[in-house]
Amino acid sequence: MDILGLIEDARSATPSLANLSTQEKNQLLLRMADSIEKNTKTILEANLRDLAASKLSKNVEDRLLLTEDRIRLMAQDVRKVATLPDPVGEEKKWTVPSGLTIHQNKVPFGVIGVIYENRPNVTIDIASLCLKSGNSCILRGSASALTTNRTLVKAIEPILPKGAVCLVDSADRSAVEIMLKARGKIDLLIPRGGAELINHVVQNSRVPIIETGTGNCHVYVDETADLTMAEKIIINAKCQRPSVCNAEEKLLVHKKIAAKFIPRIVKVLRENKVEVRGCSETKKIIPDVILAKEEDWSREYLDLIIAIRVVSDVDEAIVHINKYNSKHTEAIITKNKNNADKFTKNVDAAVVMVNASTRFTDGGQFGFGAEVGISTQKLHSRGPMGLEALTCTKYIVEGTGQIRN
Amino acid sequence: MDILGLIEDARSATPSLANLSTQEKNQLLLRMADSIEKNTKTILEANLRDLAASKLSKNVEDRLLLTEDRIRLMAQDVRKVATLPDPVGEEKKWTVPSGLTIHQNKVPFGVIGVIYENRPNVTIDIASLCLKSGNSCILRGSASALTTNRTLVKAIEPILPKGAVCLVDSADRSAVEIMLKARGKIDLLIPRGGAELINHVVQNSRVPIIETGTGNCHVYVDETADLTMAEKIIINAKCQRPSVCNAEEKLLVHKKIAAKFIPRIVKVLRENKVEVRGCSETKKIIPDVILAKEEDWSREYLDLIIAIRVVSDVDEAIVHINKYNSKHTEAIITKNKNNADKFTKNVDAAVVMVNASTRFTDGGQFGFGAEVGISTQKLHSRGPMGLEALTCTKYIVEGTGQIRN
Repeated sequence: MDILGLIEDARSATPSLANLSTQEKNQLLLRMADSIEKNTKTILEANLRDLAASKLSKNVEDRLLLTEDRIRLMAQDVRKVATLPDPVGEEKKWTVPSGLTIHQNKVPFGVIGVIYENRPNVTIDIASLCLKSGNSCILRGSASALTTNRTLVKAIEPILPKGAVCLVDSADRSAVEIMLKARGKIDLLIPRGGAELINHVVQNSRVPIIETGTGNCHVYVDETADLTMAEKIIINAKCQRPSVCNAEEKLLVHKKIAAKFIPRIVKVLRENKVEVRGCSETKKIIPDVILAKEEDWSREYLDLIIAIRVVSDVDEAIVHINKYNSKHTEAIITKNKNNADKFTKNVDAAVVMVNASTRFTDGGQFGFGAEVGISTQKLHSRGPMGLEALTCTKYIVEGTGQIRN
Repeated sequence: MDILGLIEDARSATPSLANLSTQEKNQLLLRMADSIEKNTKTILEANLRDLAASKLSKNVEDRLLLTEDRIRLMAQDVRKVATLPDPVGEEKKWTVPSGLTIHQNKVPFGVIGVIYENRPNVTIDIASLCLKSGNSCILRGSASALTTNRTLVKAIEPILPKGAVCLVDSADRSAVEIMLKARGKIDLLIPRGGAELINHVVQNSRVPIIETGTGNCHVYVDETADLTMAEKIIINAKCQRPSVCNAEEKLLVHKKIAAKFIPRIVKVLRENKVEVRGCSETKKIIPDVILAKEEDWSREYLDLIIAIRVVSDVDEAIVHINKYNSKHTEAIITKNKNNADKFTKNVDAAVVMVNASTRFTDGGQFGFGAEVGISTQKLHSRGPMGLEALTCTKYIVEGTGQIRN
């Protein structure tokens, strides 16, 4: 497959996409949603072929699987994007002493490449978010979902300006390498998926990227915590959906409440089928926990596993978190306002929660409507990314012949 | 030299720098300025040693040279940074249906590395801008300025928290390679200098970067341009300071006015000692211009050289610019509002000027007070970067025990 040609197609679509009005984009989105629903049968057939050919685990197969309901949800999500405010065209404006009027406008990036894994709904997600923000997109999903993705793109492509949505229709990994080197041709790359995929992109991309996703999230239970609240939050953060990036992976407990709280929380965690690992202090309290190894502290389990560490105070909790975390989401449970302030100010993460579950780090929960991903880097956008994260700025300067002295 | 140890020092300074109040930072800046002036004699002596050892061209030597006046200016610039508004701590705040209060706060990046060339004032510039934005910095200037930079840093270091300003006190290029690989330890790298330096950083950095500087800037003279205004702007953009990134490098002229305008502008350009190159159409009008080669269209001359191309209309001008420009600054001279709109909307650059000189792309001219550099990338910050560009955001979420359904 001619990837460079595909990138050219995406590039050549950028002026017409940038010039679409909000109304035009919303109409295209509604037509996309209709067409997805109309093609349900074809999409399900393609998905069955992918499933038949796949040698994936049951868990991963579920991510690949589409059903009539899931297709209806996809279409609904596209219709929801049509209702969101359009970031393109927002402007700040001021006049400077030279008499120039300076406009700082929000504009689309241009071409956005997304490299992702099995879930076919990401294809439609990204296509609709990129369209609404005036960008063209190059989609590279996993080989195992290729037949499904091809059918999905076929359903929406004819509706959109040529090149608006470009699918890398190849299972060949060399396509990814070409995308990573396409600096100046692709404006932004977003890897969405597991740590291995993200790490490969981070290490090899010459195109500006937004790193998303991996979450080694901690909950720290402070000396003054409401322990009933702590228990409720920890069980929610660890067990409600353990495979996602905002799930809790580590529990830090203040030493003064360790003897009281650790037996209580370990009991409930185990009732919820969570494997408990712990530091040597934890093991003194509950001798049959698995002794955590050094590498446990930086691991993202994405599974019903937790590691507990006893810390001497909020300061030690902060040091531990800043050493091992993935800069995603960290939470403190406390009644002490000073400790909460110290924690929120000094923990280095995209999101710091006080007395709330880590699971709330999410575009929908933050009120952004839709989510492109959760950025764990500091540049450009941090935390849940809404449509605005897919725009950049451009200065337009109006003069009347000014020259510089 | 132990670069990793130096990076650790910078890292360990980040909490105390992030927690400084605006007033504390401003007081430190004023003391820095005083100390620079008090050490004028020592700084000049060090600078003489660098100059004596240098084998640089006269032009480059002037960049390295310090004088009493230049040192006074440096101190003045530091005092000016003290008067600028502090971006750290600005916040947006909203409440979501779950009852959570979400704060989006401006916070320092943490550790900022800057790799730059001969001018020693950059050392003090970056140190003061990083301090004001609550960041520590790792400074890697050119080997030829090392004695000067060492003395400058010695003058300000004792005033600041330990690790706030870290000089790479080594001419060894391996230091740069270690900085480029320090992902997770350095939060942001900014290369400031020529195309070769910037390209090396872009191609090899694993640390997020902001690309600055190279400017292959165009002025397009439209059919309806006021030709007197066009002449004034072109001479200013090309000749006032040809060695800087916002100087004009290329001139595009609408074919309908080419025969009239090109002889006029070539005459004045030559009176200003500019070497004129041109396309074949330009050469038909002025036979003794040098025929521009393909590589001329993408080159940044940084010198008294210009290349002229005749284009059939604003659309061809836009296509030419988007093919060859460096995404810095592009200008149109026109009385036609539609063409101005088309140009500003479709040219892909950080700054697009209408009837003004490209030389206005500058933090000071835009009203930002100080300038970290001019970003030519789309991620995070585009165009002139003020103090705000040295901050990122952090979400603080306050709850009362919320868990996710």
